Amino acid sequence: MHEFKLINKFFSKLSKNNKGSFNLNDDVFFNKSKELVVSVDTYIQGVHFIDFKKPDLVIKKIIRSSISDLICKGVKPLYYFISGSGNKKDFSVFNLKKISKSLNQEQRKYKIFLCGGDTVFSEKLSFSITSVGFSKKIILRNNAKLNDDIYVTGNLGDSYVGLKILKKSIDINRNLKRYFINKYYLPDLHPRLINKLLTFANTSIDISDGLISDLEKLINKQRLSYKLFYEKIPISKNLDKLIKLKKLDKRSFLSKGDDYQILFTANSSKSRIISKISKTMNIKISKIGKICSITQKSQIIDQKGKKISIKDKGYYHQF
Amino acid sequence: MHEFKLINKFFSKLSKNNKGSFNLNDDVFFNKSKELVVSVDTYIQGVHFIDFKKPDLVIKKIIRSSISDLICKGVKPLYYFISGSGNKKDFSVFNLKKISKSLNQEQRKYKIFLCGGDTVFSEKLSFSITSVGFSKKIILRNNAKLNDDIYVTGNLGDSYVGLKILKKSIDINRNLKRYFINKYYLPDLHPRLINKLLTFANTSIDISDGLISDLEKLINKQRLSYKLFYEKIPISKNLDKLIKLKKLDKRSFLSKGDDYQILFTANSSKSRIISKISKTMNIKISKIGKICSITQKSQIIDQKGKKISIKDKGYYHQF
Repeated sequence: MHEFKLINKFFSKLSKNNKGSFNLNDDVFFNKSKELVVSVDTYIQGVHFIDFKKPDLVIKKIIRSSISDLICKGVKPLYYFISGSGNKKDFSVFNLKKISKSLNQEQRKYKIFLCGGDTVFSEKLSFSITSVGFSKKIILRNNAKLNDDIYVTGNLGDSYVGLKILKKSIDINRNLKRYFINKYYLPDLHPRLINKLLTFANTSIDISDGLISDLEKLINKQRLSYKLFYEKIPISKNLDKLIKLKKLDKRSFLSKGDDYQILFTANSSKSRIISKISKTMNIKISKIGKICSITQKSQIIDQKGKKISIKDKGYYHQF
Repeated sequence: MHEFKLINKFFSKLSKNNKGSFNLNDDVFFNKSKELVVSVDTYIQGVHFIDFKKPDLVIKKIIRSSISDLICKGVKPLYYFISGSGNKKDFSVFNLKKISKSLNQEQRKYKIFLCGGDTVFSEKLSFSITSVGFSKKIILRNNAKLNDDIYVTGNLGDSYVGLKILKKSIDINRNLKRYFINKYYLPDLHPRLINKLLTFANTSIDISDGLISDLEKLINKQRLSYKLFYEKIPISKNLDKLIKLKKLDKRSFLSKGDDYQILFTANSSKSRIISKISKTMNIKISKIGKICSITQKSQIIDQKGKKISIKDKGYYHQF
């Protein structure tokens, strides 16, 4: 069963008298009067990370993945809670030192604070992270407007290449290897963009499941469609190099998960200011498409107007 | 490694500039200026619940266990987030219906609202619950005063008997069986006591690991000890009946986990008002001991002044 169907069928009604939970169709909870924003996520070995050979990197990845939910909505993450289930080997003194050091580094980088959590014994390693922030306003899902431009920060696909390298299905030189693996473990979040986002974005989501899958989620309750411009979808110089070197297909890298870039829409009148902010802040922001009427089918086109088909649209949570 | 040692060694420093996390030595996080209280707990099949044959009851147990952390501190739980990891069988349509119905019943009973969460695929079933409440004040740990009386709500040991019955290591008649199994799955919380607790309790904890283990946690940072009066430690009529029937030892039922009763201390001047509240609210509250100076050894004595030794002090989280 698709995760949305599961939520709508069994759980949405449990939140019906509780506006800020958005019928459980958003990644965050927002209590406006208390200015409270909360996000809860669970990460499981074998699903969300391959193994625990690099506890420092895995911890950074899941912390970033969790606070990314707040950052993409224009909310500064402030507190986090971490609940770890694992065995003695997972939580050996050696690993605990690495975990602690890693959390400390993330705390300094993102100015967040550990506030609690839980440690329980389990044969299977998993972490649950609760991230908390305070904000008067958040950027909602399903709030795109007709003719909005569609934007994405940073580059897509690098994280996926990193994963393929870790799974030993791509072989490249050491430098590129290090670059992509780093992108897999250490996604580039954009906390500096938080306040700006609130001024120009109509709707936003972080790309965790894949560009298309997350774009569909972003507007799934609206009578809207999208048009994406294939060449505008940003990839890194290194990915471009790899694609040329190995004669790969760019399409197969665009809608993979774990990018944690911010996908948002904005009125076309904001185009200049967004471009200016992108330059002054030195954060890559690419205009990749348009929000269209439901009467048009959602599509990706190249510069000649030819339809491009991306078969793998990303990860869809299933049960 | 003992959970406290693990926390103090590796994680407390990560919360040092963040008062409300109490160096991670409490079950809750409290942000006074935002009046926010948060508790995070993880429950794993085989550790916190035996199996998932009765999803409705397991769900009720873990929800109650989670909001109990807030209630015992004088905080009304308001929101909860549930993150479930399990396989297709765990989250079959049949089970999801039961889970949803069960959550709905708990929501009505405790006036709480589901605000979000996560569902992920895992071979091993576990749940993480984040409970949130708002309060200007909370009852802290390690705030007992010398000569305080020690109190406990309800009865101890019933839940443990329920667990033994489920594990088939006690055989009794059907009515008693039902009574104890109910106590195991459906602990009696005391949300009506929340506001009152704030007026008389100096320090409090809910008994999840066992009377002695939790009492030790309650005062572990203080230079204090305790004296408990053996006969005053409350058990139910049914447990008393069972003990007599099977010629069991009361001592082996007093410090088992999963009671979720509130253990608190109060100045002796509060004795009359506590007794009055207990009567008018029809909530059993027993005065079971005294907080003593560190110069005396912590002890349990019977009415003749003879020392009673309870070998099993409860559950200590280890890694």
